[in-house]
Amino acid sequence: MKHPDVRLYRAQDYPRMPWRNGGGTTQEVACNPGGSSAAFTWRLSIADVAQDGGFSLFAGLQRIITVLEGTGIALTVDGLAQAPLGPRQAYAFSGDAQVDCRLLGGPIRDFNLIYSPGHHRARLQWIGAADNWTFHSAASTVLLFNAGQALTVWRNGEQLPAPSRYDCLHVEGRAGSAGDELAEYRLACVAGLDACLIELQPRRA
Amino acid sequence: MKHPDVRLYRAQDYPRMPWRNGGGTTQEVACNPGGSSAAFTWRLSIADVAQDGGFSLFAGLQRIITVLEGTGIALTVDGLAQAPLGPRQAYAFSGDAQVDCRLLGGPIRDFNLIYSPGHHRARLQWIGAADNWTFHSAASTVLLFNAGQALTVWRNGEQLPAPSRYDCLHVEGRAGSAGDELAEYRLACVAGLDACLIELQPRRA
Repeated sequence: MKHPDVRLYRAQDYPRMPWRNGGGTTQEVACNPGGSSAAFTWRLSIADVAQDGGFSLFAGLQRIITVLEGTGIALTVDGLAQAPLGPRQAYAFSGDAQVDCRLLGGPIRDFNLIYSPGHHRARLQWIGAADNWTFHSAASTVLLFNAGQALTVWRNGEQLPAPSRYDCLHVEGRAGSAGDELAEYRLACVAGLDACLIELQPRRA
Repeated sequence: MKHPDVRLYRAQDYPRMPWRNGGGTTQEVACNPGGSSAAFTWRLSIADVAQDGGFSLFAGLQRIITVLEGTGIALTVDGLAQAPLGPRQAYAFSGDAQVDCRLLGGPIRDFNLIYSPGHHRARLQWIGAADNWTFHSAASTVLLFNAGQALTVWRNGEQLPAPSRYDCLHVEGRAGSAGDELAEYRLACVAGLDACLIELQPRRA
């Protein structure tokens, strides 16, 4: 029985790219196996936003943004003002939308999932407060982006590499293998959990 | 844009069936649209177990069991003794396995998901302690079985029918409709959440 592919991405290794409009920079956290920052079916990234301005278009893609650091942002999506977003409030919007971002109290850092809904079904949740968290999932891709202190993760009772702050753990099932089957995940952090859990399924499998 | 199909199943309406071996009774909570207690691709049920004994076989199906009431159980699966299960500890096993159940301190009531892994990918999680819980999901089937006090559920900001204790809320997406797209779910209970969340996706869609 083949094990899933488990990778730990370290925050210090994330490449950083300036935006074309000069309003910020993006660090790529992870993307689908075989993908790149230019061509992906899913991608996680961190952005540092230094000034008000527009977001890039990602045609045909779905996005979920969350403020990691800073006071917050106010988004205007296709001309409609949205409720202000403070830290850890995930907000979903279309990559086709015209989005303007206003900083509510100085620069922020945010965390982004951008994916193709034609290729994947997604689930995203911020986990806070609890010091223990358990679930069963058959997701073919499980991503844990840690925004807190050292996180311990078990999969079917086996401890996985421990992500530090802003590290990301990636568990990728292999088609037809154990990674494609239901597994029990358990998360623990003595200081309380502060992590974003993303689960992805192929649309066709 | 079509809305998903939302149903609230009331605990007082669950049909109850005695087991063939006389060791307990089963109440059917819900099953897949078009399914029945004899032929389903997923089913939720509550069982009252009055004495030690064997579980029925469900060939080709995956099971997840959780003790709702009572001290707990010790399962032996295909001859292997498993760790004792107390309340709210979900345990996954194959419906093909030979399972013997020993009561650790008198009769128990348990909650069961039984499904076909060829038809669905599943996710199951018990939600405890927190009084607020938010996630984004594109699951085509979302089930909330409430084991606590009155639960309030919002989907994309719209309040859904409120499940009382042992009621079950069922949100079923319609293919190609909004129910098949990413949605934000928010759960709240002033007394603290005590509910089981089940999300199912079709294997082929």
